[in-house]
Amino acid sequence: MTVVTFGELMMRLSAPGHERFVQAAHFNVAPGGAEANVAVCAASLGAKARFVSKLPTNELGQWALNGLRAYGVDTAGIARGGPRIGIYYLEKGASQRPSKVVYDRAGSSFATATAADFNWSTLLEGADAFHFSGITPALSADLPAIVETALIEARRRGILTSCDLNYRRKLWTREQAGKVMSRLMPLVDVCIANEEDASDVFGIHTGSSDVDKGQLNAEDYRRTAEELQRRFGFSKVAITLRESLSAEDNNWSGLLLDGTDLHLSKRYRMHIVDRVGGGDSFSGGLIYALLDGQPPGRAIGFAVACSCLKHSIEGDFNPVSLEEVNSLLDGEASGRVQR
Amino acid sequence: MTVVTFGELMMRLSAPGHERFVQAAHFNVAPGGAEANVAVCAASLGAKARFVSKLPTNELGQWALNGLRAYGVDTAGIARGGPRIGIYYLEKGASQRPSKVVYDRAGSSFATATAADFNWSTLLEGADAFHFSGITPALSADLPAIVETALIEARRRGILTSCDLNYRRKLWTREQAGKVMSRLMPLVDVCIANEEDASDVFGIHTGSSDVDKGQLNAEDYRRTAEELQRRFGFSKVAITLRESLSAEDNNWSGLLLDGTDLHLSKRYRMHIVDRVGGGDSFSGGLIYALLDGQPPGRAIGFAVACSCLKHSIEGDFNPVSLEEVNSLLDGEASGRVQR
Amino acid sequence: MTVVTFGELMMRLSAPGHERFVQAAHFNVAPGGAEANVAVCAASLGAKARFVSKLPTNELGQWALNGLRAYGVDTAGIARGGPRIGIYYLEKGASQRPSKVVYDRAGSSFATATAADFNWSTLLEGADAFHFSGITPALSADLPAIVETALIEARRRGILTSCDLNYRRKLWTREQAGKVMSRLMPLVDVCIANEEDASDVFGIHTGSSDVDKGQLNAEDYRRTAEELQRRFGFSKVAITLRESLSAEDNNWSGLLLDGTDLHLSKRYRMHIVDRVGGGDSFSGGLIYALLDGQPPGRAIGFAVACSCLKHSIEGDFNPVSLEEVNSLLDGEASGRVQR
Amino acid sequence: MTVVTFGELMMRLSAPGHERFVQAAHFNVAPGGAEANVAVCAASLGAKARFVSKLPTNELGQWALNGLRAYGVDTAGIARGGPRIGIYYLEKGASQRPSKVVYDRAGSSFATATAADFNWSTLLEGADAFHFSGITPALSADLPAIVETALIEARRRGILTSCDLNYRRKLWTREQAGKVMSRLMPLVDVCIANEEDASDVFGIHTGSSDVDKGQLNAEDYRRTAEELQRRFGFSKVAITLRESLSAEDNNWSGLLLDGTDLHLSKRYRMHIVDRVGGGDSFSGGLIYALLDGQPPGRAIGFAVACSCLKHSIEGDFNPVSLEEVNSLLDGEASGRVQR
Amino acid sequence: MTVVTFGELMMRLSAPGHERFVQAAHFNVAPGGAEANVAVCAASLGAKARFVSKLPTNELGQWALNGLRAYGVDTAGIARGGPRIGIYYLEKGASQRPSKVVYDRAGSSFATATAADFNWSTLLEGADAFHFSGITPALSADLPAIVETALIEARRRGILTSCDLNYRRKLWTREQAGKVMSRLMPLVDVCIANEEDASDVFGIHTGSSDVDKGQLNAEDYRRTAEELQRRFGFSKVAITLRESLSAEDNNWSGLLLDGTDLHLSKRYRMHIVDRVGGGDSFSGGLIYALLDGQPPGRAIGFAVACSCLKHSIEGDFNPVSLEEVNSLLDGEASGRVQR
Amino acid sequence: MTVVTFGELMMRLSAPGHERFVQAAHFNVAPGGAEANVAVCAASLGAKARFVSKLPTNELGQWALNGLRAYGVDTAGIARGGPRIGIYYLEKGASQRPSKVVYDRAGSSFATATAADFNWSTLLEGADAFHFSGITPALSADLPAIVETALIEARRRGILTSCDLNYRRKLWTREQAGKVMSRLMPLVDVCIANEEDASDVFGIHTGSSDVDKGQLNAEDYRRTAEELQRRFGFSKVAITLRESLSAEDNNWSGLLLDGTDLHLSKRYRMHIVDRVGGGDSFSGGLIYALLDGQPPGRAIGFAVACSCLKHSIEGDFNPVSLEEVNSLLDGEASGRVQR
Repeated sequence: MTVVTFGELMMRLSAPGHERFVQAAHFNVAPGGAEANVAVCAASLGAKARFVSKLPTNELGQWALNGLRAYGVDTAGIARGGPRIGIYYLEKGASQRPSKVVYDRAGSSFATATAADFNWSTLLEGADAFHFSGITPALSADLPAIVETALIEARRRGILTSCDLNYRRKLWTREQAGKVMSRLMPLVDVCIANEEDASDVFGIHTGSSDVDKGQLNAEDYRRTAEELQRRFGFSKVAITLRESLSAEDNNWSGLLLDGTDLHLSKRYRMHIVDRVGGGDSFSGGLIYALLDGQPPGRAIGFAVACSCLKHSIEGDFNPVSLEEVNSLLDGEASGRVQR
Repeated sequence: MTVVTFGELMMRLSAPGHERFVQAAHFNVAPGGAEANVAVCAASLGAKARFVSKLPTNELGQWALNGLRAYGVDTAGIARGGPRIGIYYLEKGASQRPSKVVYDRAGSSFATATAADFNWSTLLEGADAFHFSGITPALSADLPAIVETALIEARRRGILTSCDLNYRRKLWTREQAGKVMSRLMPLVDVCIANEEDASDVFGIHTGSSDVDKGQLNAEDYRRTAEELQRRFGFSKVAITLRESLSAEDNNWSGLLLDGTDLHLSKRYRMHIVDRVGGGDSFSGGLIYALLDGQPPGRAIGFAVACSCLKHSIEGDFNPVSLEEVNSLLDGEASGRVQR
Repeated sequence: MTVVTFGELMMRLSAPGHERFVQAAHFNVAPGGAEANVAVCAASLGAKARFVSKLPTNELGQWALNGLRAYGVDTAGIARGGPRIGIYYLEKGASQRPSKVVYDRAGSSFATATAADFNWSTLLEGADAFHFSGITPALSADLPAIVETALIEARRRGILTSCDLNYRRKLWTREQAGKVMSRLMPLVDVCIANEEDASDVFGIHTGSSDVDKGQLNAEDYRRTAEELQRRFGFSKVAITLRESLSAEDNNWSGLLLDGTDLHLSKRYRMHIVDRVGGGDSFSGGLIYALLDGQPPGRAIGFAVACSCLKHSIEGDFNPVSLEEVNSLLDGEASGRVQR
Repeated sequence: MTVVTFGELMMRLSAPGHERFVQAAHFNVAPGGAEANVAVCAASLGAKARFVSKLPTNELGQWALNGLRAYGVDTAGIARGGPRIGIYYLEKGASQRPSKVVYDRAGSSFATATAADFNWSTLLEGADAFHFSGITPALSADLPAIVETALIEARRRGILTSCDLNYRRKLWTREQAGKVMSRLMPLVDVCIANEEDASDVFGIHTGSSDVDKGQLNAEDYRRTAEELQRRFGFSKVAITLRESLSAEDNNWSGLLLDGTDLHLSKRYRMHIVDRVGGGDSFSGGLIYALLDGQPPGRAIGFAVACSCLKHSIEGDFNPVSLEEVNSLLDGEASGRVQR
Repeated sequence: MTVVTFGELMMRLSAPGHERFVQAAHFNVAPGGAEANVAVCAASLGAKARFVSKLPTNELGQWALNGLRAYGVDTAGIARGGPRIGIYYLEKGASQRPSKVVYDRAGSSFATATAADFNWSTLLEGADAFHFSGITPALSADLPAIVETALIEARRRGILTSCDLNYRRKLWTREQAGKVMSRLMPLVDVCIANEEDASDVFGIHTGSSDVDKGQLNAEDYRRTAEELQRRFGFSKVAITLRESLSAEDNNWSGLLLDGTDLHLSKRYRMHIVDRVGGGDSFSGGLIYALLDGQPPGRAIGFAVACSCLKHSIEGDFNPVSLEEVNSLLDGEASGRVQR
Repeated sequence: MTVVTFGELMMRLSAPGHERFVQAAHFNVAPGGAEANVAVCAASLGAKARFVSKLPTNELGQWALNGLRAYGVDTAGIARGGPRIGIYYLEKGASQRPSKVVYDRAGSSFATATAADFNWSTLLEGADAFHFSGITPALSADLPAIVETALIEARRRGILTSCDLNYRRKLWTREQAGKVMSRLMPLVDVCIANEEDASDVFGIHTGSSDVDKGQLNAEDYRRTAEELQRRFGFSKVAITLRESLSAEDNNWSGLLLDGTDLHLSKRYRMHIVDRVGGGDSFSGGLIYALLDGQPPGRAIGFAVACSCLKHSIEGDFNPVSLEEVNSLLDGEASGRVQR
């Protein structure tokens, strides 16, 4: 089982503990980025994972590559060159104070990559799944076409394709996102979205859930999923449902529309250690479960349990084992010490 | 808008994380002190803030001064000299274990300051508000008269005067506090107190709230506020209401008696990062709101939101922006990541 | 009041904060071990405590001995020699992710100790209580007989003997444990167990509590205690009741069967800082309370309050004072700052 | 005495201790940049210092501004806006392994600043000295003209102007540097250079010193200084002489050509804590000494002693007091504990 | 160019900075072990490197494997299973105080590995070099035969074989070492030794150098090399020469006997950051140079420069690039900042 | 062999690494104080050590007591009570920048102790040596008499008495010191001084050594020792000789005048990790050697070797073993790794 993901790997600079940016005398530094997170998650579960990207040839690029390699991800598909590594700064919120992310990724090696950097016929060799998120085509004018090339090659080879819509308003407008993503979606098998993406990217408003108040209505999201399926012909649509009670306390669940069947996961009340990468670990878990041939009801449960555990782990990455996900999925959620 | 505050700036030595004092191999060190905290809060919100105090000429005094200056507080009014910087040690509690504060401030440069150290006509030049807390006159025999001089000068200039009662039983007895504070209060416009101060300092008992059990009754505190107003003629009385559910979980709200109108704030359930300085950030927020001309109902809400955010921040200081307070005040309390 | 405890002192290597093992670039290191934890707890409460064990002569053995000595435990009874210090690795869980303990204690100096290392007539000189846990006889083939020798000598001197069953499935099978412990128990006055031990060690199943779901029924545990008492003739049986709501949120209470009287403690809802050593601090508190002559109802309350506080403290040890335990026992659980 | 400096303030991200970039799990973070360093140095010595620059409006910009403000530098002249804060990464060398600096400053707020961001008539109000380094005009196409405007305004006001040539080959070619700097130099009073700059920027080769071997010949540098003076009419030319014995062991001295008189400083053998900012503290010390009216022989000694101390301090900044510099200058170099 | 190395990978637990073991409250933790160090060094220089070993299936084994994988070493040849990961503790010395290493590797997964764990025909597939050190056969009774099997298979395939004698007196006696190593050496092409090994393992005493006084005589070591060559028929013998002036100051050089030609390297005076792994990086550099076809005079210089740089780097590993080694070898030893 | 020492135990707050005070965001914290340091040193060498002092009853007092107890010092003679623990702040110098010590010990529990706090007949029970330094009588008006009482009791019991002159100009004037110490010295057997004390305290100037230039002449110090012996009748006079080459590089040696025989130690060139407590470890080593019955020539060598090792250890304390001192004394100064 081989998963290929495509996107930017950044340097994540986070203020330690609950320090505000203005208080920081040092930053924790770790690699992170939506699609790299998916690759690490899949590799940790036991799949082969290959990450395709571009990093500068300098020591910071090497640092990021090593950080990914440590988790067993195949990094041979990472082109080297270009001006700089993208950065994102993270300040962890608490209680009523929200976490803050400041991006500094313009002009990065990945954002300035060109089609010549990626030989998809080699990169997709032997792959079973290809994944990207809506961030990747948002990063440059060249990237939508590069993603399209990859998707066409993947389709040609019968590889399962998946996309997490992952709308980021600081990267592009809703109009830009809608236009680009509408062109790419027909090439995608599995669409993954959070509770806001469908509305932001495709203007699909289907209910009265109040995201800001942390009250979500699963029925609304069924309609969202059905509308996504109707428009683009996805074989599966998965939606994550996050209810934000505070910066640290969230409810977390998901649903999967498989043809006409809707599967709803268990809902977890989480006390969060690190929320960033939570959605990516859902994608990683879902892709793993689907390639693994799990029935859809178990697959959505697996993906939600997998990402539930991520929220208890520092950093973007989700180094949890198959056994750990299965144990939670099978009901062991008491947090009792294992010895 | 210029706020002047007067008090002691200490070195805060806190055991890291949840370590007990006896476990500590290093201390986090940061400046702190009730009135300095108010100045930093006001400056962070956008006011000009001036802090008046005295610090030793040695490197530790300079360290504290720099730490204040970083947040944009005008430190020109800090006299230099005297024997030592005051210290307080902090051990952070958790669950049923309370936080502990050990003071070591006797004989400090501020406690041994004299009237000659402070030229109030210069120090209050251009000021719109003057603030102190009940800690300041408790620190030495000279300080009550120095505070009185400042208040008289402030009144003469039409500056808004405010006082946080801030009773500390380790500094003086209730009798001493009552005597000194009763003399100063007629010179104060805005009186700020927590749920115990009025009783401790002035013997005003108005209800059956059980502070130790974390059950507070707002109606009781209305009577407390009215009695304070009656005795000393305050134009406004603000009371913070803290319900301690555990060392980390508190409810937090406030009320403002403005003439005969009582305004009650929203109540926040907080998961606390650092509780010290919580009351001071309420004072800072309230003074800002009043100088800003906010109507009393919004002002008390602003002060409570401002101090609610402080509880999620490490250290005595409250580096939150006007936008952040307004965002919480306007209902955004879900802690959703901002990116 | 002098308490002697006997067992292994290990090096505890814990990943910092909530880091997973695979993420760790450094480990916090502290001494720990069930019976040493009891000794530190008793010493912190004001008793004299003596710890009997064996540590290597190298610097790591000295490090552990010093770490114990710091808390006022008499270490003269620690034999020196043998191949290595035992280790346990700890990864702290969060939310649905459980904490993990990996033992590396095989072949340690204590596990290879022989009867010749311990002169019980000297070691028990002047003692009022002797305590061990079920871990000690599990560590080697020689240790059951060594424990038996100590118990016989203790009985001869009229010393109160106590044992925490403390079953560890990675150290021995239920059959082995049952056989060895059944031989030792008749020499024990006070039996201490958690909600699973009696079942694991002696096959005593008395009810329908679902440990994994965090739902415990005190009535079931009364029957467990009575059956333990019936079989081995204990003068007292104490059982701790842990309801695991998540890795960080537990309910914690205990019961004490004293002859025919059952005493139930208050139940605390804890937000946990460090769960390891929680049971040991219950034993330490109970032994202290019994030697102190507290009536059984207060003694069980004291032990539970003592161990409740431990859960808010980093490390295996429980450096809380008598005043702190009494304060919690007497109702001060609000966590209000003490200054 | 008021010193104005103009340049970029960056975020300095340094691997802790002697860690290599690929080993880093966190970075120490501190503000730094040639001209900001000069301002901090001058302020620490007792001058008034004003720093002119541009920083983004985000929290990282505020962090940098606060970090400068802590040292007493007037930050009112820092424009806010633009895309990002510039970054430089630092890996500290040891023994034969050189330190490495990786710049990531392209597209920063300062590099994209325009003439409209700086009102020199306000910014130079009351100034006694204006300083910049060769880095500033190298950062964008607009900056040479902005610097020229500032220099013309400074000349008009009779303000002492100084420039540290500070050639950086990664920012521009020698040809570009020579062209731009040749245009600016006639407006400069005091030229500061290290042992390589004159050759790099202006092609002035005057001797056989072998920089790489750490062998410098002061006589060669006299000729360099004279040639600089001849070409551009500087009133003073100062040259720092660094002999690199290893990454940590350097000899450090300087010379000052004042008209026709050459003044040579003492030479210090330094064991280096942090070499970055060493040259800037020389500029800061020299400007202070000149404004202070010190005779040239003492001034060059003062500048070298000032920067010698910097090499013993972590970070770009040089928080040393006038007394400390004078003490070293007056011969106290034994490093004896002061108590 | 593919290098295979065989040995134990341990967890290195080092007291931070210059702390003594008894002072440590945390340990830095990093993977390390002689042959793994060689693999990392070769991979960093640009070779393909494969490490063969055995690690436990638990999280600590995974941690070590990930730590190696980060540096690009192929870990597919690491068997998983067995009881525990080997440990070594490191206390870093200073000045006259020596560094201390305490081993705790008995009973590790590697020490209990059997021939069945290693399929050498697969493991040596495509390899150009096979390396082990004298530590490997010292770790168990089975390992000498396992090494012999590997060497025979390597010889069969025409793979270059190398061995670093690496005598450790705590692992075996000189007699045991002499016996085992004498049997293996005829299968080795390149013998690597430090200034004491030949004497310790084979009783070859050839001169009057006083290792303890840090005075080494290269001529003595020529005779040692010649005698080694004579006895075992090595094609090349390399000897590292360390003169210990203090815990932090060493001279470092090496010689290579190639047939009858002796090549002496430059001697470096090093100020040491971390001395452990110094010899292994010599082996890594030498193997790289030989596979790279460098002439012997350059090869020994390359190996010494490579390992000289290692002494400036924290940890056992040597993440230096080919360019960095060549730069030092070509004379750039001044430690000047690279920017 | 039992050594009793008497003095103040402080909290040492040191800026980490080479940070200046104004840069510190945390302080390392460790107990320290001249006479406590001597006790720890003696205990580490294998003697029984008892420390007599007074500490506050609060948690900071307990912290200090525990820190001493960890090293095996008997703390039963430490009175508890009084206002506060004394503090000293330490900034570690480097190269030409000197270390700085800022004392904040006025009004401490020890400085306000009275004769009633110390029952010398109990405290000296079974003692073989009693030691204090010149700091102790300098701390209050009561302490000279308390020291005198202790010395008289010690003399009565035939206990060896020793005093390290340890002049601190910030505590008292030379005149005050001379007067008090002249009264105590006739009760002292062994006088210990550094290269400046005899001059500072007793006005004994005997030569032309230039302390500030780091050039010491042993012959001068013989005359100093003889004059001390002549005036006060010491049985032995020991003088430490420190040549300060830089903050980190010192030469260190000592001499012992035993009756008419002068014994000069070896001189060590030290690269210093932490210089504070260096003199105290000399006293500790000397007292141990004398009680151990070492001949004077070996005793002075032992004391100097013991204190040489201290300079390589962080903190005031000197946890070195007898074996380590003997190893250095016997010539092993190469710093070679011990494994």
